[in-house]
Amino acid sequence: MNAAKRMMVVGDGGWGTALAVLLDANGCDVGLWAYDPEYAELMQETRTNPRFLPGFDVPAGIRISSSFEELVQGTELFVSAVPTSYLRSVWERHAPLVAPHVPLVSVSKGLEDGTLLRPTQILANILGDHPIAVLSGPNIAREIAHGLPAVTVVACPQPDIAERIQHTFNSDVLRVYRNPDPLGVELGGVLKNVIAIAAGMCDGLKLGANAKSALVSRGVVEMARLGERLGGHRATFFGVSGLGDLLTTCYSPASRNRTFGERLGRGERAADISASMTMVAEGVKTSKPVHELMCEHGLQLPISEQVYYAIHEDKPAKEVLRSLMTRVVKDEAEDLL
Amino acid sequence: MNAAKRMMVVGDGGWGTALAVLLDANGCDVGLWAYDPEYAELMQETRTNPRFLPGFDVPAGIRISSSFEELVQGTELFVSAVPTSYLRSVWERHAPLVAPHVPLVSVSKGLEDGTLLRPTQILANILGDHPIAVLSGPNIAREIAHGLPAVTVVACPQPDIAERIQHTFNSDVLRVYRNPDPLGVELGGVLKNVIAIAAGMCDGLKLGANAKSALVSRGVVEMARLGERLGGHRATFFGVSGLGDLLTTCYSPASRNRTFGERLGRGERAADISASMTMVAEGVKTSKPVHELMCEHGLQLPISEQVYYAIHEDKPAKEVLRSLMTRVVKDEAEDLL
Repeated sequence: MNAAKRMMVVGDGGWGTALAVLLDANGCDVGLWAYDPEYAELMQETRTNPRFLPGFDVPAGIRISSSFEELVQGTELFVSAVPTSYLRSVWERHAPLVAPHVPLVSVSKGLEDGTLLRPTQILANILGDHPIAVLSGPNIAREIAHGLPAVTVVACPQPDIAERIQHTFNSDVLRVYRNPDPLGVELGGVLKNVIAIAAGMCDGLKLGANAKSALVSRGVVEMARLGERLGGHRATFFGVSGLGDLLTTCYSPASRNRTFGERLGRGERAADISASMTMVAEGVKTSKPVHELMCEHGLQLPISEQVYYAIHEDKPAKEVLRSLMTRVVKDEAEDLL
Repeated sequence: MNAAKRMMVVGDGGWGTALAVLLDANGCDVGLWAYDPEYAELMQETRTNPRFLPGFDVPAGIRISSSFEELVQGTELFVSAVPTSYLRSVWERHAPLVAPHVPLVSVSKGLEDGTLLRPTQILANILGDHPIAVLSGPNIAREIAHGLPAVTVVACPQPDIAERIQHTFNSDVLRVYRNPDPLGVELGGVLKNVIAIAAGMCDGLKLGANAKSALVSRGVVEMARLGERLGGHRATFFGVSGLGDLLTTCYSPASRNRTFGERLGRGERAADISASMTMVAEGVKTSKPVHELMCEHGLQLPISEQVYYAIHEDKPAKEVLRSLMTRVVKDEAEDLL
């Protein structure tokens, strides 16, 4: 099994850049595509990405360009690292340059506004019957750029492609697991953000470790319950790409979704918090479709439901937590179904 | 269904005292038994427990004594909150005073030195065919004494007793779930301590959120794998008494097991850390039987195995983490079995 050698990372955000650096270190020939020609030039000249991954060098071996055409030749694997909100426009523009047999691995997290499609669904819309994998896990880009060890998960309907991607990305820094459930892997990275807002509310209300642990452990059950209903495998949500990613988002001080919840917990209004943040907290957007799906499928998702009320109905954080604590007590095993 | 009204909490540690206070607030008539007559007198006079739960009042309604005989009359439910290492001697001494039909709920965590028995097994040894339940969860005693919200789990072979205990303990502060798997609930509180030592090693080595999240999410899989082999239900370990308790222990700065691991991570030797701690970290003791069970059953428990090497063979923390990160990459789904 040969690892892919000539790669193209589409998107110069923190995660795309960190992955380009990692693949370069793994011996790949890496092209890094940036949307903005001026910024591509600046990166090329300074060999840094000051806007999205400040403080790290971009090795000389990485070809940086805003010309897709210039980078694409001979590409054996695409890495799609475009923010979900720009995903459709970027790939629609460049789809004619993508050879049909070249696999693509999506590392974006989130749902498309309006359509509520997952990144791999958007890509399939555009690229048709194309081999598309997903890579997701507890992966703060800055930590990986620092060389701190991490684990991630790759999943793909074609097992041979998953294995090839696994060996391409695997390194001393990043341990890559395979998982046969691409839908579950991708959904884990989406659903965790709603739970992380609730975990942040615990922090903002200074409720302590007991309450936050209970909430996070009940939260992953909600992720699994909804994810399974949507077609994912239950076990995936309790794995590294589900629970693991949830933990990073709930416990890292830097997490946008956790911070959003913390500010709700301190009494700020959702609209005011959103207005003050430069990048949107994905969980704010996700809370709405999750609530719709909950109603549509008649699911018990008490934490996600309360996050929805906190964001969309200005329900105070204290009352949100009180609602969660005063639910009718029952059998945990029943509740786990 | 009537909640029990006249209760006896055996053990004046932080958890026993916090539960006595909670039951008193729930309207129960509570006796709190202390081993040391002088200390019982001091608590009775000052209405505080300065050694084990400093900073909190013990309400006047709680009867405090070192005389088991004095407190036991009319008891409708025993709460056994004795540290596991003293459990056998305390209950052997007082077994003749325990009426055979009065349920007992065990809240001790850990395994008995030498025999490796769980608290409820020790109690069954002494009390014979007696209704024994277990209550366990992410429950830092000080937080509950502060009135911060928490969740816990009660499990018992007799469902009616579990339900009675649930309603006795349930309050605005403590939400009580039932679980039909007493063995799994009790084991969760034991096995989590070994994983927490590994999580602490991540902290001591400053490995960041990615590594710690991955380790904790793989750790709960190890708990479930061993726990299931020992007869527990797999789902229990992913519930509040398993994962939830694990999270509190891995993320609370105050956790002894996490702190032990943190000091290992900073380069201290296990023997030196143990010598400097006033109370032993349970996971240090538990690491040995877990390793024996791993070998005996031929289980893959890589994290627990490496914790064993760190403690018992002075394997440096850096190498422990390197061993975990350089394992052969494989299918996560396979690994989840």
